[in-house]
Amino acid sequence: MFFASDNSSPAHPKVFEALAKANEGYASGYGADDVTKSAAQKIRDLFEAPEAAVYFVPTGSSANALALSIMVEPWQTVFCHQNAHIEEDECGAPEFYIGGGKLALVEGEHAKMSPDALRKSIEFTGRAGVHNMQRGAVSITNVTENGTVYSVAEVTALTAVARDYNLPVHMDGARFANAIVSTGATPAEMTWRAGVDILSFGGTKNGLMGVEAVVIFNPEKAWEFELRRKRGGHLFSKHRYLSAQMDVYLDDNLWLDLATNANAMAAKLSEGIQQIEGASLLHPTDANCVFARFPRSGHQAAHKAGAMYYLWPFNQSLEGAPEEALAARLVCSWSTTDENVETFLAHLR
Amino acid sequence: MFFASDNSSPAHPKVFEALAKANEGYASGYGADDVTKSAAQKIRDLFEAPEAAVYFVPTGSSANALALSIMVEPWQTVFCHQNAHIEEDECGAPEFYIGGGKLALVEGEHAKMSPDALRKSIEFTGRAGVHNMQRGAVSITNVTENGTVYSVAEVTALTAVARDYNLPVHMDGARFANAIVSTGATPAEMTWRAGVDILSFGGTKNGLMGVEAVVIFNPEKAWEFELRRKRGGHLFSKHRYLSAQMDVYLDDNLWLDLATNANAMAAKLSEGIQQIEGASLLHPTDANCVFARFPRSGHQAAHKAGAMYYLWPFNQSLEGAPEEALAARLVCSWSTTDENVETFLAHLR
Amino acid sequence: MFFASDNSSPAHPKVFEALAKANEGYASGYGADDVTKSAAQKIRDLFEAPEAAVYFVPTGSSANALALSIMVEPWQTVFCHQNAHIEEDECGAPEFYIGGGKLALVEGEHAKMSPDALRKSIEFTGRAGVHNMQRGAVSITNVTENGTVYSVAEVTALTAVARDYNLPVHMDGARFANAIVSTGATPAEMTWRAGVDILSFGGTKNGLMGVEAVVIFNPEKAWEFELRRKRGGHLFSKHRYLSAQMDVYLDDNLWLDLATNANAMAAKLSEGIQQIEGASLLHPTDANCVFARFPRSGHQAAHKAGAMYYLWPFNQSLEGAPEEALAARLVCSWSTTDENVETFLAHLR
Amino acid sequence: MFFASDNSSPAHPKVFEALAKANEGYASGYGADDVTKSAAQKIRDLFEAPEAAVYFVPTGSSANALALSIMVEPWQTVFCHQNAHIEEDECGAPEFYIGGGKLALVEGEHAKMSPDALRKSIEFTGRAGVHNMQRGAVSITNVTENGTVYSVAEVTALTAVARDYNLPVHMDGARFANAIVSTGATPAEMTWRAGVDILSFGGTKNGLMGVEAVVIFNPEKAWEFELRRKRGGHLFSKHRYLSAQMDVYLDDNLWLDLATNANAMAAKLSEGIQQIEGASLLHPTDANCVFARFPRSGHQAAHKAGAMYYLWPFNQSLEGAPEEALAARLVCSWSTTDENVETFLAHLR
Repeated sequence: MFFASDNSSPAHPKVFEALAKANEGYASGYGADDVTKSAAQKIRDLFEAPEAAVYFVPTGSSANALALSIMVEPWQTVFCHQNAHIEEDECGAPEFYIGGGKLALVEGEHAKMSPDALRKSIEFTGRAGVHNMQRGAVSITNVTENGTVYSVAEVTALTAVARDYNLPVHMDGARFANAIVSTGATPAEMTWRAGVDILSFGGTKNGLMGVEAVVIFNPEKAWEFELRRKRGGHLFSKHRYLSAQMDVYLDDNLWLDLATNANAMAAKLSEGIQQIEGASLLHPTDANCVFARFPRSGHQAAHKAGAMYYLWPFNQSLEGAPEEALAARLVCSWSTTDENVETFLAHLR
Repeated sequence: MFFASDNSSPAHPKVFEALAKANEGYASGYGADDVTKSAAQKIRDLFEAPEAAVYFVPTGSSANALALSIMVEPWQTVFCHQNAHIEEDECGAPEFYIGGGKLALVEGEHAKMSPDALRKSIEFTGRAGVHNMQRGAVSITNVTENGTVYSVAEVTALTAVARDYNLPVHMDGARFANAIVSTGATPAEMTWRAGVDILSFGGTKNGLMGVEAVVIFNPEKAWEFELRRKRGGHLFSKHRYLSAQMDVYLDDNLWLDLATNANAMAAKLSEGIQQIEGASLLHPTDANCVFARFPRSGHQAAHKAGAMYYLWPFNQSLEGAPEEALAARLVCSWSTTDENVETFLAHLR
Repeated sequence: MFFASDNSSPAHPKVFEALAKANEGYASGYGADDVTKSAAQKIRDLFEAPEAAVYFVPTGSSANALALSIMVEPWQTVFCHQNAHIEEDECGAPEFYIGGGKLALVEGEHAKMSPDALRKSIEFTGRAGVHNMQRGAVSITNVTENGTVYSVAEVTALTAVARDYNLPVHMDGARFANAIVSTGATPAEMTWRAGVDILSFGGTKNGLMGVEAVVIFNPEKAWEFELRRKRGGHLFSKHRYLSAQMDVYLDDNLWLDLATNANAMAAKLSEGIQQIEGASLLHPTDANCVFARFPRSGHQAAHKAGAMYYLWPFNQSLEGAPEEALAARLVCSWSTTDENVETFLAHLR
Repeated sequence: MFFASDNSSPAHPKVFEALAKANEGYASGYGADDVTKSAAQKIRDLFEAPEAAVYFVPTGSSANALALSIMVEPWQTVFCHQNAHIEEDECGAPEFYIGGGKLALVEGEHAKMSPDALRKSIEFTGRAGVHNMQRGAVSITNVTENGTVYSVAEVTALTAVARDYNLPVHMDGARFANAIVSTGATPAEMTWRAGVDILSFGGTKNGLMGVEAVVIFNPEKAWEFELRRKRGGHLFSKHRYLSAQMDVYLDDNLWLDLATNANAMAAKLSEGIQQIEGASLLHPTDANCVFARFPRSGHQAAHKAGAMYYLWPFNQSLEGAPEEALAARLVCSWSTTDENVETFLAHLR
């Protein structure tokens, strides 16, 4: 009953097989190896983007920060939701890699920016010439930090606003697989066809050990990305061990199968919780994260049984919080089982 | 016959066993797991440094740059050899993490700083009050970029100079294991007992997939390091996969065994080359890297046979270079075999 | 009828006299001259702060950014009002000098932070350990960007919140003189006695050509400030020309006399506008800035007569805006005359 | 007898007249005033560069650092002489504004880079792909820090090397007027016609209070410069006081007249010193700075008589240094008189 985070899950066994295979013999370093070429090509094929530049980095923060650093200048603003991971959970990595920069926090329910709020924020930023930070880029998180998913139409509505101001668009897809499973869109439809310029394509939260791809659909700044990656200490010498994870991830729809399980388990969990008296959802369960309020007695029983999850928001305490505030974030992953969910629900009841 | 770099070697099989073991079940993220605690404790024990703060990062550049960033201010200078890895091979990672900074390039034969040259450089830097960059820290690379090794006495002579100016000392130990095998010193003798404040303790080049430890002997700035690591995108969520590599590395002297093989193979290779007519060493072979000049015919035969290595310096070309300039960098690793060396030597002859 | 900004005013004649006097003969550069010593001492005396470190810089942005850069680390947050000058009008200078950093935008009416909103913002920032930006410092603008003034009690209420979290406090006093005149507080009462650690003490907007003092009440980081000032390109070689302005500013209460006129003219203007039918204030007129809404016909008459001022907010246009939105920012200075105000009011009526 | 620095001289009386005239009435801030337009146009005319973007900043360090920041990326290298002001006297301002960056130190006699040494340094920097810092720009200081002057032919020889690698060229012309007087070249010949892309055009050392112009011959990055200037805190609100200095400087050849006196006084001083027994020049006296070695007795007599100058290099002491090392830097300015020089020489003898 481990619902603390999808990054607490183990890696999928196939990842180990792939690593073992990649480990045979010598290989050139820094990405000049065959498995890196293979994995990058699979991503280009998957996204129907033969020109895309594809790079592998070890963490979601490095993917996001490096991506943003080639999209905005130090005196520019990134427009994102006020609960975006880049704002709340990266200790200023974007500002560090951008060399200054500012994040303008856009409002919207369930961690989804509304196009109107985005437009208002962009308008506000650009109003005073040289005295203001300038408009830089838009960053969309999909799946959001509240577990909701933007549809392709919703993404397109945001990128349309960005285009009105000639701003490039980044998508933080740490849980991109879950968003694809949730919407049924193709990777191309969710990204470049919807107006996304650079995607952080997550693997770590969905069954890999630790690798994310940065997919740059217009490769004009690819070399700059390579230099920034090196300079950030993110260019792996034994690069094959990053690439091999991503390579197997894309074989036989593994990435989708893993996300399908995570989403299905969250749906089951969400439905179960809603049937409990006094329980309710904070946000729709669109993907693999459930945000729900339920009675203190349920929390106590679950904790006693060893269930692991965060109260929500993070700084709550089970004992001190008033009954009406007792909410939880419950994250399912590729390895969550029906039994995990059922046992947990049994304790809650 | 792969002598291009030690980072072209595969990872040792025991690393895979350790990863598979670490993969069982769920684990808290971001380093709050048991294997991280275990590996850190093993390092504290190994270095006889019970107070040391120990952190794991994925690359040598991130280890060095993060370490230096808590040692110097943006307006300070790092004193290092002009051929140091931090100067030549990290695309400005130290300057990026420091937020400016400057590297003062100290002279010395075979990539080893001489104490006098170090003192001269420090004296020169601090001469003009507010107008100059200020004195910051000293960084010693051991094994050096020319394959030579500082003895404990040599390290101590450099740290004594640093102490005269109250400067902290960093050691870039990407090949620390090879230096320990070469000198017979204990890890404590080579570091904090010799006046080193922070060590980048390498694993990647010596048989791991990709992990380095930063060992901070005085843990006063440990929290700052954690924040900088996070902000740099180097805090792994599934942290156990970094730590498990380092954990097994320190079991049963594996780290020393691997380096012992690498050094022994380099010694054998070095001796063999010196017996070839017209061949000579550029630098003493103290550890696992051989820098040698040998006839063009030898190069041609080796290349024809598929041997992989870099001409030295990097920008040479086999055909264009004059006979007297034809040198090679040959790096041995844990996986280099007697047969590799013998076959290679046979081609050279 | 020039109400666009107090920085559109000329410099006071006494400033020229002082510069001419300072120009006699040779003087050591970089602040090692007598007039710099004199001006710094006058500030220490004025603030009853014999230990304070005092530095002169040419602009308000450099004063604020340099001050903040010695108060917060690159991974920390500055808490300020959402309309603070450091947020809206410095093109990211604080983030540039801090080397990253983030400004957390605190709410409150009339550009004044409320202690509760400040506490809420600080609480929110510090909630998630290494993953978040950390709490850094509080910055209070007095006079605010809406022309309101914090009383000493209001400042103290904010610094008390800061002290609860051990955060240092900066005051942006670009219009400090106007705040002192408005409140009748002494400089010491408004700053260190109220819990302010560093003050940007403005001169440019109040009759000087271009100089601001940074007053660091606890001089522990004075040397760091000097290095950052140099590194920012703000250490003047012919330093006497900065200092002489500030030196004469503090003679015979010139700085207060100038602000007294500016505040008095604004009060008169404010009263006059309020008597116009359909006119109203947006914010209280506490100092030298009037924010008022008045009929389109008044705007048109004023513009026709050559009055200079900004519609408010900045991105309004006189013709396009609806009647109810037609507001103006009107700034008075040391050189505004009764006649200026009366003529302007006559046009508005 | 004040030969410590040209920045110890007073400002020329005409500068005060111009400031007083510029002080009449109100003026728009931030450079949108008439005197700024006038001064910028005079520079464009003087340099025969009708398209050039011209900006005014208060210090030489801000001019150089801002200029370089629009020429190189954070991962690139500026090639300059090892004694360049940007290397030795700006406390890392270039690295701060560039956001990292590295200065590669080129050799050459009398603080002048030799084309061969420049080429060698550029070649060395670019040798290893993504692992190295990349080639960025060349910066030429004219007058050099040793008082020597590059001829137009010498500048052209350096820019030709830069062009071979597509590198832009910056000229640090803190003493540009002295270089022009020394060579007889026109401003255009010395800059864009010789391959210079951006010039820091000094005023402060040559009789102004504190202003330098940045002349950007290709204005493509003018807007970026404006944003960086603002962000650096160098955009003056009461901008007319910067511009008025530069405006009068260019009237009636004032700038050349002032430099002509400085150079003539240095020539006279240099000749006089060479006639003293045991005296000799360290560097040719091409402009307004004399670097000479002369007997201890001369130093003692001069000091006793109150002469002000620096021993050279800076960290010498008159008593401790051996006789053969006793050298001085003697800087003449617009205000140095025949009598100053003669009296000083009399003491030396």
